[in-house]
Amino acid sequence: MKLIKYPSKEQWTELLKRPALNTESLFDTVRSIINKVRTEGDKAVLEYEAAFDKVTLSALAVTPEEVQAAGTLVNDELKAAISLAKQNIETFHSSQRFVGKKVETMNGVTCWQKSVGIEKVGLYIPGGTAPLFSTVLMLAVPAKIAGCKEIVLCTPPDKNGNIHPAILFAAQLAGVSKIFKAGGVQAIAAMAYGTESVPKVYKIFGPGNQYVTAAKQLVSLRDVAIDMPAGPSEVEVLADASANPVFVAADLLSQAEHGIDSQAILITTSEKLQTEVMEEVERQLAELPRREIAAKSLENSKLILVKDLDEALELTNAYAPEHLIIETENYMEVAERVINAGSVFLGSLTPESAGDYASGTNHTLPTNGYAKAYSGVSLDSFIRKITFQEILPEGIKAIGPAIEEMAANEQLDAHKNAVTVRLKAIQNS
Amino acid sequence: MKLIKYPSKEQWTELLKRPALNTESLFDTVRSIINKVRTEGDKAVLEYEAAFDKVTLSALAVTPEEVQAAGTLVNDELKAAISLAKQNIETFHSSQRFVGKKVETMNGVTCWQKSVGIEKVGLYIPGGTAPLFSTVLMLAVPAKIAGCKEIVLCTPPDKNGNIHPAILFAAQLAGVSKIFKAGGVQAIAAMAYGTESVPKVYKIFGPGNQYVTAAKQLVSLRDVAIDMPAGPSEVEVLADASANPVFVAADLLSQAEHGIDSQAILITTSEKLQTEVMEEVERQLAELPRREIAAKSLENSKLILVKDLDEALELTNAYAPEHLIIETENYMEVAERVINAGSVFLGSLTPESAGDYASGTNHTLPTNGYAKAYSGVSLDSFIRKITFQEILPEGIKAIGPAIEEMAANEQLDAHKNAVTVRLKAIQNS
Repeated sequence: MKLIKYPSKEQWTELLKRPALNTESLFDTVRSIINKVRTEGDKAVLEYEAAFDKVTLSALAVTPEEVQAAGTLVNDELKAAISLAKQNIETFHSSQRFVGKKVETMNGVTCWQKSVGIEKVGLYIPGGTAPLFSTVLMLAVPAKIAGCKEIVLCTPPDKNGNIHPAILFAAQLAGVSKIFKAGGVQAIAAMAYGTESVPKVYKIFGPGNQYVTAAKQLVSLRDVAIDMPAGPSEVEVLADASANPVFVAADLLSQAEHGIDSQAILITTSEKLQTEVMEEVERQLAELPRREIAAKSLENSKLILVKDLDEALELTNAYAPEHLIIETENYMEVAERVINAGSVFLGSLTPESAGDYASGTNHTLPTNGYAKAYSGVSLDSFIRKITFQEILPEGIKAIGPAIEEMAANEQLDAHKNAVTVRLKAIQNS
Repeated sequence: MKLIKYPSKEQWTELLKRPALNTESLFDTVRSIINKVRTEGDKAVLEYEAAFDKVTLSALAVTPEEVQAAGTLVNDELKAAISLAKQNIETFHSSQRFVGKKVETMNGVTCWQKSVGIEKVGLYIPGGTAPLFSTVLMLAVPAKIAGCKEIVLCTPPDKNGNIHPAILFAAQLAGVSKIFKAGGVQAIAAMAYGTESVPKVYKIFGPGNQYVTAAKQLVSLRDVAIDMPAGPSEVEVLADASANPVFVAADLLSQAEHGIDSQAILITTSEKLQTEVMEEVERQLAELPRREIAAKSLENSKLILVKDLDEALELTNAYAPEHLIIETENYMEVAERVINAGSVFLGSLTPESAGDYASGTNHTLPTNGYAKAYSGVSLDSFIRKITFQEILPEGIKAIGPAIEEMAANEQLDAHKNAVTVRLKAIQNS
């Protein structure tokens, strides 16, 4: 970990630098896989599963029997935990339902928005050593609330052709319609274009490695929407002298264990805390099963001492962290001044893990500074707001002449004429 | 125009086909322009302005004097029309303000969303024969309401180095902070990376040709957000026997005049209307100044007769038009069944032109079937919803064990530990 004391503003850019992302260099490789899946369908997906996931599948679709069996393979404690998390995610995301109100902008001119769920969505859940059932909940629960009619999930199977039972249990609990054994670029391509088994969807969600990210980017150029651009996960803890160094160290480590490119940053006004956190991280690190990954990631981590809370906030807003934990006195006042962050955790008893799993907020969030322009996944991500308008005779009389004037000046006479023919008809009636 | 009667479902895909978009083939050309602007700044932008817009500029920034002079060059009728439109856009977009509510998902666990404006946004307004001051309003008015602190506008100057006064007038009225004389790829690159004159922004909005679209796509892969993918503009009129063929023809033509690749489609349940619209289009076309463009675009237009409203709606939702005009009896009931569209215009007195200019809705909308996954531009496009959460002792006691269980099963022990250290601290206190 790097201890940095009172950096000058000139050092900020360098200090806040993230690992460079370059998925464009993968585009050629990824494009060829996408094109093959697009033209050959299931056959290509099965071939890539054999090549990349080292598994020979007879079919891509998970059967109802497999889903049912999963229910018996997950222990009761985990089932209860998943159910509690699902309930909280449902409560919070249900509160985000949008009901448009009709607005009369002028007499006889009424405009409104209506929320309509995206009909078909695709969720990608990466494979690897740990089953990311929490991400299943974070994506499928809001999709269901939004009224998405088809919720497709793709995730790579293990070498025996099985999907982890906790993933199947969470998917079924959250209301996923169809589950497929497919990972990587081939899964993204299958959902973007459809195959004999996998339905084509309109928007694809979910994390993945750089190949998955590149595939999502490529298909999003023309053919399907995606949730947001992806980068390595990151946390910033903003703390003053009142913070508990044990908690701060635990929060930094819980980010560091994600992967060697994870970012964990402390910005503090207390030199004492800076030192104590440093020591406490070392102590806790020694006890972690994933200490090798965490230690590697901590090499890039920074503990930054600044002169006051104003500067801490300015630096925070310049960094735009995915996760921001505020452990200060008067944390509510500090929170009011956050402009750029994905999700904010307030007070000493609100670890990032809470939002990662069970408090109800979504854990799919903008990394890499994208919080300056993007929101995290929410109910909004699964709906569209369609605008409607209705104009009555008094309305077209009121705005018609302005439209004619503007259209004429933009040299769009047919636009003008669409109003003129109506104004004439009203006059003649 | 193509008259199509009772197409079978097998014909739908072919019938609803849009012109192929392929901006990827431009990526190499566009990337080299972007890279030059990124490294050389203003100097490169000025060079490209000389090369592409045939203008020698001494500076990119529009001066306050130029903005002031514009006010005297726009006639009073147009000023009044722009002001009326601005007022209605402001009324409708102000009504979209989001205030998050605090939700207690469990006792002691409170989650909420807060809307925060994107700090810096860039608006691109294309050049060409007509000054698109309406698009200035559609982008700058919601940006201002959202609280964006820096609203940058780029638009190409004419050969004398001037920007059309109506654009400057609208920009100043709507609250644009800084206006620059720059068009095309160089303008997008300048806003994406910043130059000596042009501030770097976090999200870029606005229409443009295929080079501008390609530039927006390329910079959005890593560095800046964009409003949405773009394609040629399109309208569908859904009409029954009650519709006025003069209005329908005028609406189709107002789309056709945009450009030769514009799409105008009629879906109707009335064979009589189909014939009458065909004849009326020919009649109105002859009187239009832009009849050559419109005639060319009409070659791809279709007048489709279907058996009933159910089929009309199914076909409409499969097409997902940018603009949908519903001229039927009981149009409110029909509107209820629209799933995929950008903006919907209801009844015989609600032409698309109303929403294009002055009713209050936004005219930046998803084309090319993107309405299946994207919303049009609205206040949402200029904000982010940041999530916040606060957990009290009873809250962490309630959800802590579930988090520990889930984290352990995802093999993320540091995530678990961030909860464990807090539960221990509470017990000991």
